Amino acid sequence: MYGKIALEEAWAIPENFKAYDVSSLAPKGVIGDDLIANLLDVHGTRLTQMDSNGVEMMVLSLSSPGPQGVTNPKDAEELATLANDRLAAEISKNLKRFAGLVSLSMHDPAQAGEELRRCWGDKTKGFVGVILNDYQSAGEDKNIMMFYDEEKYDAFWKVAEELGAPVYLHPREPTPLIYDEMWKARPWLAYSALGYAHRIGMHVLGIVTAGVLDRFPRLKVVIGHMGEHIPYDLYRIDHKLNRARFPNMPMAKDKLVRGYFGEQLFVTTSGHFSTPALLCAMQEIGSRAIMFSIDYPFESIPNGCVWFDEHVAVSNRDLVDIGRNNALRVFTRLADSEGVHGLEEKGPRECGVGGLGLKKEREREVEYGLYNRDWDKRLERR
Amino acid sequence: MYGKIALEEAWAIPENFKAYDVSSLAPKGVIGDDLIANLLDVHGTRLTQMDSNGVEMMVLSLSSPGPQGVTNPKDAEELATLANDRLAAEISKNLKRFAGLVSLSMHDPAQAGEELRRCWGDKTKGFVGVILNDYQSAGEDKNIMMFYDEEKYDAFWKVAEELGAPVYLHPREPTPLIYDEMWKARPWLAYSALGYAHRIGMHVLGIVTAGVLDRFPRLKVVIGHMGEHIPYDLYRIDHKLNRARFPNMPMAKDKLVRGYFGEQLFVTTSGHFSTPALLCAMQEIGSRAIMFSIDYPFESIPNGCVWFDEHVAVSNRDLVDIGRNNALRVFTRLADSEGVHGLEEKGPRECGVGGLGLKKEREREVEYGLYNRDWDKRLERR
Amino acid sequence: MYGKIALEEAWAIPENFKAYDVSSLAPKGVIGDDLIANLLDVHGTRLTQMDSNGVEMMVLSLSSPGPQGVTNPKDAEELATLANDRLAAEISKNLKRFAGLVSLSMHDPAQAGEELRRCWGDKTKGFVGVILNDYQSAGEDKNIMMFYDEEKYDAFWKVAEELGAPVYLHPREPTPLIYDEMWKARPWLAYSALGYAHRIGMHVLGIVTAGVLDRFPRLKVVIGHMGEHIPYDLYRIDHKLNRARFPNMPMAKDKLVRGYFGEQLFVTTSGHFSTPALLCAMQEIGSRAIMFSIDYPFESIPNGCVWFDEHVAVSNRDLVDIGRNNALRVFTRLADSEGVHGLEEKGPRECGVGGLGLKKEREREVEYGLYNRDWDKRLERR
Amino acid sequence: MYGKIALEEAWAIPENFKAYDVSSLAPKGVIGDDLIANLLDVHGTRLTQMDSNGVEMMVLSLSSPGPQGVTNPKDAEELATLANDRLAAEISKNLKRFAGLVSLSMHDPAQAGEELRRCWGDKTKGFVGVILNDYQSAGEDKNIMMFYDEEKYDAFWKVAEELGAPVYLHPREPTPLIYDEMWKARPWLAYSALGYAHRIGMHVLGIVTAGVLDRFPRLKVVIGHMGEHIPYDLYRIDHKLNRARFPNMPMAKDKLVRGYFGEQLFVTTSGHFSTPALLCAMQEIGSRAIMFSIDYPFESIPNGCVWFDEHVAVSNRDLVDIGRNNALRVFTRLADSEGVHGLEEKGPRECGVGGLGLKKEREREVEYGLYNRDWDKRLERR
Repeated sequence: MYGKIALEEAWAIPENFKAYDVSSLAPKGVIGDDLIANLLDVHGTRLTQMDSNGVEMMVLSLSSPGPQGVTNPKDAEELATLANDRLAAEISKNLKRFAGLVSLSMHDPAQAGEELRRCWGDKTKGFVGVILNDYQSAGEDKNIMMFYDEEKYDAFWKVAEELGAPVYLHPREPTPLIYDEMWKARPWLAYSALGYAHRIGMHVLGIVTAGVLDRFPRLKVVIGHMGEHIPYDLYRIDHKLNRARFPNMPMAKDKLVRGYFGEQLFVTTSGHFSTPALLCAMQEIGSRAIMFSIDYPFESIPNGCVWFDEHVAVSNRDLVDIGRNNALRVFTRLADSEGVHGLEEKGPRECGVGGLGLKKEREREVEYGLYNRDWDKRLERR
Repeated sequence: MYGKIALEEAWAIPENFKAYDVSSLAPKGVIGDDLIANLLDVHGTRLTQMDSNGVEMMVLSLSSPGPQGVTNPKDAEELATLANDRLAAEISKNLKRFAGLVSLSMHDPAQAGEELRRCWGDKTKGFVGVILNDYQSAGEDKNIMMFYDEEKYDAFWKVAEELGAPVYLHPREPTPLIYDEMWKARPWLAYSALGYAHRIGMHVLGIVTAGVLDRFPRLKVVIGHMGEHIPYDLYRIDHKLNRARFPNMPMAKDKLVRGYFGEQLFVTTSGHFSTPALLCAMQEIGSRAIMFSIDYPFESIPNGCVWFDEHVAVSNRDLVDIGRNNALRVFTRLADSEGVHGLEEKGPRECGVGGLGLKKEREREVEYGLYNRDWDKRLERR
Repeated sequence: MYGKIALEEAWAIPENFKAYDVSSLAPKGVIGDDLIANLLDVHGTRLTQMDSNGVEMMVLSLSSPGPQGVTNPKDAEELATLANDRLAAEISKNLKRFAGLVSLSMHDPAQAGEELRRCWGDKTKGFVGVILNDYQSAGEDKNIMMFYDEEKYDAFWKVAEELGAPVYLHPREPTPLIYDEMWKARPWLAYSALGYAHRIGMHVLGIVTAGVLDRFPRLKVVIGHMGEHIPYDLYRIDHKLNRARFPNMPMAKDKLVRGYFGEQLFVTTSGHFSTPALLCAMQEIGSRAIMFSIDYPFESIPNGCVWFDEHVAVSNRDLVDIGRNNALRVFTRLADSEGVHGLEEKGPRECGVGGLGLKKEREREVEYGLYNRDWDKRLERR
Repeated sequence: MYGKIALEEAWAIPENFKAYDVSSLAPKGVIGDDLIANLLDVHGTRLTQMDSNGVEMMVLSLSSPGPQGVTNPKDAEELATLANDRLAAEISKNLKRFAGLVSLSMHDPAQAGEELRRCWGDKTKGFVGVILNDYQSAGEDKNIMMFYDEEKYDAFWKVAEELGAPVYLHPREPTPLIYDEMWKARPWLAYSALGYAHRIGMHVLGIVTAGVLDRFPRLKVVIGHMGEHIPYDLYRIDHKLNRARFPNMPMAKDKLVRGYFGEQLFVTTSGHFSTPALLCAMQEIGSRAIMFSIDYPFESIPNGCVWFDEHVAVSNRDLVDIGRNNALRVFTRLADSEGVHGLEEKGPRECGVGGLGLKKEREREVEYGLYNRDWDKRLERR
């Protein structure tokens, strides 16, 4: 599919690695040849791969945990500002192909709002939303976890809603405290295999059940990894959030968690290239609530794109909505006609979807059914 | 789901039964108590059942085969005109709940276009589209079958496109000739169990592959019964309509049958209340190409509605699109703000979808997960 | 479906409530009229509801957390022994309809093995497996969590494998420590809506990745709630358990978590009556790895059975496998021809599956397609 | 997947083309370079492609229509005998990789039974079932169609049941009569795109509803092309075969068509490599009723195998059942321990299923999630 938009794509500045050493995530050969080089790069290998895999636009964000991993408020705020300025500088070199999410320190909700306003005010900076990497760490031992369903954060949500800036909630590692208790003896489960989804899933459900989306009805929240297992459990979640048992739960009494999806809550496919999971999510929350993403460079661009372009068994229309159009409806600045990115909704034909042979060089003739793509290769396995 | 729209709903006038005796379709007890009474009724039992099953609007059409079963052109034209006038008279008594499809003799494409214009001109008649019951019978022995992919019918399609009138292609019984050859020894297969879909499926694919939808790109065609098995076979159909093998096939060389669904080709759920079939259709042609329908009185209204409201496992948004909103996008007169029906698109909450306990009498509190609906009934099986 | 077997069904003795007060789980009206009475009951309301909902066999187990919630080893062991003897006494009154899971204190793996042997030795006690309610609490402040992927527990797993006793891993509440840190401000998420699955999901994946199933290749482990969201995340879990990154992870290097499902790892439908989740699980782990369960009395019997019998859109064969036959293959004592329960595998017809009208009173005639079940009710909504 | 078995694979002798000129099916470049050469070949290109695509066994059958296209009984019988002897001679050269279906003239059911007995008696001939290419043509003008639901054919079905020979019902072209009436003006629909499925679908449903499977309860019938659209329509078919309306339909009154699938009725994937269709079939008829096939040389071997091995999103267990094991349960001679083919059921690991990196050369380590297969290729699109 041509014209794809990818939303959860990491980028880093060297200062970012002070808060979190990513080298442990990636011994050579595990995630590409050089994770750090890939994180620092924008216009080189990254763009080349976008070109050859039908990715028109990447929305970049500072690699996790970013300011959320910095316990000192001043240091966290300075990291956010530094990262935002550096990202704006990179993006502005190629606004047709790149956009960005604003990083924020969440120690002080008012300051977070101010930094967001500063970045948002100038469209040419190229920002289209916010990234928050799960809880804000605080305390000398890094063990204090600040969650954004606490009342004081309404000051921040108010600004995000007012500006129309969608907030992407991204996972991060456990605190030392939790890590010691449960994850230390099984570190392989503590991160992306399981723990990431546990923590961010609880956080986003905390925000929803705290009534944040009710108080700010135009606010949009996005989560990755096919919804951090929430779509699969949605029946049980709604069934068990029984108001007779929990009369003090602040979420609107006449709503279900299910009801926010597609309106204020959205998921992306980042790092979870599973067709059964995607089909399940479509049945539970609907294709309008799902957006394509890769999670580069922690995932391979061709891997995510080959899956999406050729393996996913959904209708043409759903494919282009998930691959492109839904992102324009959620991250509206991408499509802002007075804006800098200037993207427009497209149909299946414009995106080359439907008919595996619908290739640019032979546009007037389509052929269907070639899983082993090229006709002249049908006698040998690729 | 409140606010459903049903599109393939039969109605009859006594004169209709001259062409085709429906009593054989329905010994007492097979389809309700009295099929003929149910066909003749509009504002009685039919409306009562619509009320109690969340059907806001029924689009009525003369029971198959209608004029298509009349071999004499003049008789066929007279039957069409009579039926259209009688239907307009019935509908106009309750335009908020009923609309109609225009019946046409298809012996003479120009006359068909004229009759369509006559009915379409006055919005208060309540017509929103056309019904054609498969091939037009002709010849003394009823064995001539006239199909609308023949070139001369372009004169008719042109009018339908110009007026914006969607055309519903409905199945009918075999000709005596075909009936004798293949179906006579196994009559149970000749009608709705199998033969209906065979004949109308070939007819609609004939129209598509003849290039009718290419020549009239704003024309919309609708078929019932979850697509007459076409969605399930779509991969194979497109794969086998190989242009190298069939260079003279008129359909646009750069299109697949798949590509017309959701744009010019739509299906309804009439009489095929199968969740696996619906899920398959959603994967192949997308939820935007599917619309709810019942096929009353050949199907039971509660049967179709209980299936759709409670058994279908699709997202809230897809349910209301399939149950209502898609119909307003295809049959645009239903939603015409200057029109007589005045229907509007609705969201899941307005339609009471999501949360089985979302009932009018206790609107402020929802509960999820009650397959055995009422709380006080959860200890006994209904 | 007649002949269903339900596997995660709670029962209690008054002494059980010392470790955990369930009344908070169930204000009157939330889960039936009287949760405690329902937990204590076996042969009364419970059996009556089994009869009227097609449940032939319930496998009972002491309500969570049972001995796992008792920090003092001696007290925990005494509670287990007491509960096992009481359960055997109840079950033995009706071995055709009830079986049991052995409760165990897990403070001392050797003692756990001995208690299991004691209960297992006499088939007339009716035990067919083991229940472990997540981690074993220990320590004065209840904050020590003992997980069974620790090496010392091999002594227990060895006995379970030797005896052929499948082990059901059931969730429980958080420790005070974890509760304080993360869940206290949002208690509605701490239990069945989310936290249950988080904790037991980590625990079972800990056991699998620790190589327990490799060291004991005939051992079978069962988890409820449609797999505690693991099936949905299975692609990502396997993808991220990268051996190059985690060379010390003990699980066999030539296996994936996916590969254990259906062989040594099984899920039940308890308390998660979601058709999209079931379809996703079937695509990821296969129907042979899934077994029906209700989670009574925390869930309503008719609610679970109406969902399973009438709403689930799977093939006849899969339905009876999931509803009955798979349980006989996993919990083999249920089917032991020399055993006391004497259950046999059945086909769709024997279970009344396929054709909603296939009812005992009119066995020679079937009818299909009646979502609104009885013919004489097809004109009114039930 | 290693070890696949393919069941609907065409082969021809020059004499076969007298009855039907296949060159029209395949202008150069439409289906491989040379359809006729591919039909005649067994041990050359065909076997090479089987090797490189994980196909262990191909069950060969004379290309359609074979004897069914020969109107003169004696000529038809001679063609069948000739083809059977030639096929046995080819197969016997490599019984580990090839088996065959017996061709039969169906002019005389008794003679058909005798020829089947002759071929079946000697296991070293390698026959494992029967192929019938739809109706038997008769009459000077080829317009007489003989269907096997006629009572006289019980004499043949009796032999097939007695011998345990499954009967594969394969489609063929229309008669001149039917061709003239309906298909001539739209020849692209008359064959594999649509007409094939129409005719053979009616034929097989004719056989089922005539009670053939009731009178011969051990008889097994197989159809290709994902069930000739029957699975998708199964709800409607069963719903509309209403016994009150059709009291004379011979099929057992207490059965539904649905109930025969997986017991006596099976489908293959030949030529319909559609994931949504496969998922729908699995929901309606169950994975045990579905078997892999390609339809070579009318379909490309790599195309079918790449789809099945890499695109189909079903569980490991279902994949190997559909790809191999089900064939051994239906065509039992393939697995006959005293037989000549000696195939055995295999598990996912033996077939290399689960973990795309589970390759022979590095068997001790698996990796998951590589849609873009090889690790060293993850930075470029293949």
